[in-house]
Amino acid sequence: RAVRGLLLDVSGVLYDSGADGGVPIAGSAEAVRRIKASGLKLRFCTNETQATRESFVKKLRGLGFDISVAEVTAPAPAACTILRERGLRPHLLVHDDLVPEFAEIDKTNPNCVVLGDAAENFTYANLNEAFRVLIGMDKPVLISLGKGRYYKETDGLKLDVGAYMKALEYACDVQAEVVGKPAKRFFESALTEMGVPPEQAIMIGDDIVNDVGGAQRCGMRALQVRTGKYRPSDENHPDVKPDAYVNNLAEAVDIILKQL
Amino acid sequence: RAVRGLLLDVSGVLYDSGADGGVPIAGSAEAVRRIKASGLKLRFCTNETQATRESFVKKLRGLGFDISVAEVTAPAPAACTILRERGLRPHLLVHDDLVPEFAEIDKTNPNCVVLGDAAENFTYANLNEAFRVLIGMDKPVLISLGKGRYYKETDGLKLDVGAYMKALEYACDVQAEVVGKPAKRFFESALTEMGVPPEQAIMIGDDIVNDVGGAQRCGMRALQVRTGKYRPSDENHPDVKPDAYVNNLAEAVDIILKQL
Repeated sequence: RAVRGLLLDVSGVLYDSGADGGVPIAGSAEAVRRIKASGLKLRFCTNETQATRESFVKKLRGLGFDISVAEVTAPAPAACTILRERGLRPHLLVHDDLVPEFAEIDKTNPNCVVLGDAAENFTYANLNEAFRVLIGMDKPVLISLGKGRYYKETDGLKLDVGAYMKALEYACDVQAEVVGKPAKRFFESALTEMGVPPEQAIMIGDDIVNDVGGAQRCGMRALQVRTGKYRPSDENHPDVKPDAYVNNLAEAVDIILKQL
Repeated sequence: RAVRGLLLDVSGVLYDSGADGGVPIAGSAEAVRRIKASGLKLRFCTNETQATRESFVKKLRGLGFDISVAEVTAPAPAACTILRERGLRPHLLVHDDLVPEFAEIDKTNPNCVVLGDAAENFTYANLNEAFRVLIGMDKPVLISLGKGRYYKETDGLKLDVGAYMKALEYACDVQAEVVGKPAKRFFESALTEMGVPPEQAIMIGDDIVNDVGGAQRCGMRALQVRTGKYRPSDENHPDVKPDAYVNNLAEAVDIILKQL
């Protein structure tokens, strides 16, 4: 099948994140340049919710990547689209640095809760407040920016947004709507932005479930890189099999460009 | 069937709790005295985990109740029994006021996590720490003192221990062992302490699931009082039907004593 577009996960594919700003993965910056030179369409498809796209892109440019805000598909803007479509006014429980993404959204008299990886904002008081907003609704609407279980930072493992999503789901007897990978709609919006149908697109990521499984359920092919959060046990995953494994993004791009 | 013993829930049956210490429910103190005068066996069966039994009993005596520590079945001592039986050394994420219940338990080099209603101790840092202890085990052991969804205090609704239990369960892909109502073993230990078989015991509580459903699954009869957290919608519960509804504990005792 012809390939016309690539979707790239960012953390663990382009760079390894950390409190120090992170370090690029060898060969990835050059690989992004080669994709752009080839004429293939390209989107960066990330679940990052601890920063606006602007500051996220600025950090990546500082690490040597050719990337612009217009090329990034991220959960917060996708959530804003949903909020506008449905006339939803969010109570936000998100990271301080993400709040500007919601600047133009009406947040008065909330009729839903938007949950992101709030990190230090996950306080007892803030969780009770988000809970009270939800339980006070006739039909609680909880929108979660991703559903990750945990992630690693330089000072250790941290509970991710998915854990707090489960806490609120249980307390309110409600099911969250997940925006971001692996939600089908999230991948579809990235494809629409590229103007490429799923059967002509390839997702490249380090997360067997959120990147590979999610993309395949949309009809895309998906490669798993052996960088980032990849673990050898992923190759025995009971449900998800990537179309191929590659050592890193540079190798993936070698193989794809050779077959064009 | 003969009745030889009663199990009483405390909060919502004897008194309504609150930051001000709570207020007795009319007729309940007299009802406890009448049970004791009748010769029926009696246990107080509570999921309280924000205080030791000592301070809990002291508060209730101050409200006019004839109650002693030896008559109380509560999750923390039940958890201590399990910890000793299985050689488990807990990392505690509980309320400060509950910690003395675990004074004689070895807590060095933890091989399980015990989760209670930690209230203000449910901080981002403490949750991450409990998570890291769990995820670092070959086979994570999470013991939860109850699984309530939320409760009401004078300053509003609060997330209960069950919500945080779900967060840790999801993050670690593990199922918690629940100590306290509605766990079968918890009711059974209360029955053993009374020396009464389930078919000769009646549970009286305000919680349709944790009190009524839990007791019935142990072979007891169970009455729901229309005080505390009772809501009229409980009478349409899809799974649980009490053996009878009573307006309050005083009415329940009237009916039971008349049939002796």
